Amino acid sequence: MTSTATIAKTPVAPYYAVIFTSQRTDVDQGYDQMAQRMIALAFQVPEFLGVESVRSADRLWITVSYWQSEDAIRRWKTHSAHTIGQEAGRNMWYSDYVLRVAKIERAYGMITDY
Amino acid sequence: MTSTATIAKTPVAPYYAVIFTSQRTDVDQGYDQMAQRMIALAFQVPEFLGVESVRSADRLWITVSYWQSEDAIRRWKTHSAHTIGQEAGRNMWYSDYVLRVAKIERAYGMITDY
Repeated sequence: MTSTATIAKTPVAPYYAVIFTSQRTDVDQGYDQMAQRMIALAFQVPEFLGVESVRSADRLWITVSYWQSEDAIRRWKTHSAHTIGQEAGRNMWYSDYVLRVAKIERAYGMITDY
Repeated sequence: MTSTATIAKTPVAPYYAVIFTSQRTDVDQGYDQMAQRMIALAFQVPEFLGVESVRSADRLWITVSYWQSEDAIRRWKTHSAHTIGQEAGRNMWYSDYVLRVAKIERAYGMITDY
């Protein structure tokens, strides 16, 4: 699997992003498996473009996944419904989160122009 | 100044986001002052909605700032041009970055609905 700890190589805009910001509890049970499975599923979805994920020392996470279309995001959501669908897991792993769906309108790189 | 290490309390969509993903060098000289000044300037711009910023142990950063309009983003860019405008600083602090401007189309929270 391609690393999530690098800057995603995305195409020329427009494309889409899912920005998932979460405050994690101190419960790790089952979390890594779920998170890895979510990412692995994303890589199997056509039109998945890449992902960037950063975790701070105080357990705030920002994960941004990139997609060519909103349809691709919907396919990922359908594929992964069983993985994160359990209310119990959510309440155990997160004290809060927000998921935002966005259309990337333009982008500028230091090295690569987009 | 409001913390950047929490989930931003944003209004109902649509609104805008600037997703800034960067790979930092190991040069810290002047960086914290610049970064704090960029955030302080954002808080002075009307229609600034909040910011989320996470830094990993290996110096990958994701900072997402939220704005009511694209005009607000432009005002922040104008205000902050002198702060980050120096090519020398950029090359010293970053080995790579991508800045993406996005329109948030919808959002879902664990606790708050948007």
